[in-house]
Amino acid sequence: MSEKVDVEEHSMTARVLAEIWGTFVLVLGLIGAAIFAAGFHEDTNGVGILGVALAVGIAVLAAAYSVGRISGAHFNPAVSVGLAFAKRMPWKDVPAYVLAQVVGGLLATTLIYLIATDGPLGFLLMSTEAGFASNGYGEGSPGGFGLTAVILAEVFFTALLVWVVLGTTHKLAVVGFAPLAIGLTLTLIHIVTIPISNTSVNPARSLATAVYGGAFPMSQLWVFIVAPLAGAALAGLTYRVMLNRKGD
Amino acid sequence: MSEKVDVEEHSMTARVLAEIWGTFVLVLGLIGAAIFAAGFHEDTNGVGILGVALAVGIAVLAAAYSVGRISGAHFNPAVSVGLAFAKRMPWKDVPAYVLAQVVGGLLATTLIYLIATDGPLGFLLMSTEAGFASNGYGEGSPGGFGLTAVILAEVFFTALLVWVVLGTTHKLAVVGFAPLAIGLTLTLIHIVTIPISNTSVNPARSLATAVYGGAFPMSQLWVFIVAPLAGAALAGLTYRVMLNRKGD
Amino acid sequence: MSEKVDVEEHSMTARVLAEIWGTFVLVLGLIGAAIFAAGFHEDTNGVGILGVALAVGIAVLAAAYSVGRISGAHFNPAVSVGLAFAKRMPWKDVPAYVLAQVVGGLLATTLIYLIATDGPLGFLLMSTEAGFASNGYGEGSPGGFGLTAVILAEVFFTALLVWVVLGTTHKLAVVGFAPLAIGLTLTLIHIVTIPISNTSVNPARSLATAVYGGAFPMSQLWVFIVAPLAGAALAGLTYRVMLNRKGD
Amino acid sequence: MSEKVDVEEHSMTARVLAEIWGTFVLVLGLIGAAIFAAGFHEDTNGVGILGVALAVGIAVLAAAYSVGRISGAHFNPAVSVGLAFAKRMPWKDVPAYVLAQVVGGLLATTLIYLIATDGPLGFLLMSTEAGFASNGYGEGSPGGFGLTAVILAEVFFTALLVWVVLGTTHKLAVVGFAPLAIGLTLTLIHIVTIPISNTSVNPARSLATAVYGGAFPMSQLWVFIVAPLAGAALAGLTYRVMLNRKGD
Repeated sequence: MSEKVDVEEHSMTARVLAEIWGTFVLVLGLIGAAIFAAGFHEDTNGVGILGVALAVGIAVLAAAYSVGRISGAHFNPAVSVGLAFAKRMPWKDVPAYVLAQVVGGLLATTLIYLIATDGPLGFLLMSTEAGFASNGYGEGSPGGFGLTAVILAEVFFTALLVWVVLGTTHKLAVVGFAPLAIGLTLTLIHIVTIPISNTSVNPARSLATAVYGGAFPMSQLWVFIVAPLAGAALAGLTYRVMLNRKGD
Repeated sequence: MSEKVDVEEHSMTARVLAEIWGTFVLVLGLIGAAIFAAGFHEDTNGVGILGVALAVGIAVLAAAYSVGRISGAHFNPAVSVGLAFAKRMPWKDVPAYVLAQVVGGLLATTLIYLIATDGPLGFLLMSTEAGFASNGYGEGSPGGFGLTAVILAEVFFTALLVWVVLGTTHKLAVVGFAPLAIGLTLTLIHIVTIPISNTSVNPARSLATAVYGGAFPMSQLWVFIVAPLAGAALAGLTYRVMLNRKGD
Repeated sequence: MSEKVDVEEHSMTARVLAEIWGTFVLVLGLIGAAIFAAGFHEDTNGVGILGVALAVGIAVLAAAYSVGRISGAHFNPAVSVGLAFAKRMPWKDVPAYVLAQVVGGLLATTLIYLIATDGPLGFLLMSTEAGFASNGYGEGSPGGFGLTAVILAEVFFTALLVWVVLGTTHKLAVVGFAPLAIGLTLTLIHIVTIPISNTSVNPARSLATAVYGGAFPMSQLWVFIVAPLAGAALAGLTYRVMLNRKGD
Repeated sequence: MSEKVDVEEHSMTARVLAEIWGTFVLVLGLIGAAIFAAGFHEDTNGVGILGVALAVGIAVLAAAYSVGRISGAHFNPAVSVGLAFAKRMPWKDVPAYVLAQVVGGLLATTLIYLIATDGPLGFLLMSTEAGFASNGYGEGSPGGFGLTAVILAEVFFTALLVWVVLGTTHKLAVVGFAPLAIGLTLTLIHIVTIPISNTSVNPARSLATAVYGGAFPMSQLWVFIVAPLAGAALAGLTYRVMLNRKGD
């Protein structure tokens, strides 16, 4: 294997704690913005899709600059799986990373749920009756997109995320800018695909909201596990042939 | 103590002046945007929550790139206290920093007050009757959130800020990106929590606005001193165990 | 020739694949945002011009940090031509680059078309009847600007893009910031000129949308090939005399 | 004089050309966004104050990364004068810089005027009858602020800009981030002060718009020459005592 695995020097405990924390930050920023700020006062003060998209991008940027040196800053099962497919992370480390990401995401939505229950009833209803900002297709899609559209979007935009992670953390890439590029890529992905699927590209994020969103989003959750992982595989398997032909 | 304290090489006078200036910039950007631009013309020209959140993030980013090498760029009593809890700053330096931050914040709201008094009456009333963009809970909360919600938000989002400060200014973190990550983290925090508490995470900011906001915000000020400092303690005490296990 | 050509060390196959991928990302981000998110729900949740402008800037930033070391990250025939005029890229490489950019752009609009066809009819009609976010003048201009205005805008804003590319990728420029500056320059260009021409500055982007936009945008496509290339020539020819007088 | 003057190695001709170009870019981005995009379609697609503020910030960021190594990237008489007061630029170079900035600004508004004349009448009237996005106080202030408020805002926000320029281009500041911090500082300044004075902090920008804005903005122009220069002097004179006590 010619490419470096950066994070072996830290213990798995340290890496798991960093992934829990980082995924907590990602979901707290994303879902916090979606529930508390997106449509605030239903007027121009609300941050809308753009504000939500910036929130998640900043969350990843900040968390990655904080703990990237420890765990590699995946915060997303699709990223971990994509790196494994690209042979940039050993498969044996994937389960611990994914478990940490699931825990971190659930901690974040739990905190948001607790805050929402002490708000005016509207905020709580907006959260829970609207599916707690869960992902969905058909009736669950913000713009009413069907299953095919949602799968296409989730596969290709997850692949986009993983391609950018692979490219910007490559050992010959310019040092220091990967968290900026990756965070903003999440912003881009959310700008484009919130109307389609409410944007997953991250199974841990989808699970964390479905748990508080009720039976309907839970029944559609499988799509937001399968499609992002398929996109991760697509990116991981094509990266070396397509964008890293020298294998350096 | 294994971690470096970066700023000892400058005199305390230099550091205090830098903290006064930086907190002045932070509060001028944040409260200036909130009062003059957030709801300007009550139409789509106003910058809304997103514009205010970007303003404070940019203010900290710019001030930190300007004087971070002198004082470490805290601009916030919660950050100074959090760094002291994490043993990255000696406790004996905290009082001077906090005093400087309080002075800087008050200078900024004084300037904003002077500008508002020469505007149309609406701006002045919007400022003073609306509590001068002060923090609050219950009736003082922009979205009507209760004390529990506000405390939860202030504790955990202040902790988020301090965790990011500790992570991105760590001696092994990539050089140069901390002001970017920290500034944008403030943007993220404001996007999510303006509807909840109008966002403090900074006692100096809360005091600076309460002074011009009247008796009501002053009566709630204690929350925005206690909760951010509790969040700072949470982050400072957990950082070494959770996100810096090697102690490097 | 005193200036370096950075990317000769990679095979033309690698560079072509990187240009296909990068232009795919650019058009996917830009046109995806324009079609799915710009006017979503016709209320304040839509991202508007600002969101579209940020999307394309982030797309280029992310793609350039990912594969810039391979191909130089042009993603735009006008950039390739401008660099050739400035003697920073051999003319013999231009045809392969342009072909790759055209292919990448078409792949992106094809994916967007496929997603839109599985959305509610409104999205598809909004896409195809509105010309699939194509460029245009007169009736084809979002703000109703005439041919002269559109040509002026396309020439000078393409020149702006190419000047910035030449300046920020200069061998003496500070390392690492070119993708940030170039991506954000595209954001700036779109903020200003979407109302004028829907912003091309990139013939590959214009072709990719005209193909799905019908006969009318196709009949105006020549403008968005000629004017950007003229702007590229203007920038490429003036750069050495105007902004690089020392020829270093 | 202990501080370096970075740009002496380039000829004054090269520096003047870079300042013309950079000020052209600044004013083109700022006023182009204000006139073509701020209130486009009078609906949520318009970019509003936030979009204009981002446009000018990006313009400066991009231009400074492009030609900062040549001229120091002032693009603003107040910055040149502020640096001279701080002894970071010789006074003898100031006149050529200021002249270049005036020329660059006028070239930009001329181009915008030419584009607007080939748009629908509304755009031209919006430009010219609204004073071509000129600065003003009283009736000329977007929010109706009086002369005192406008002078306070222009003095202190110009000082903020110059303090940030001095701090981030200091020889001990972290390399490469100054254009990012300075550009975003302009974004911050515009977010806060567009409602007050339509934001000058730059006499070349004010002159460039007043020329096309008619007699009224021309009659108020003196304020936007005097106040920014006073702010520049304030920052230049206080910087060494306040934020650079070691004189390093």
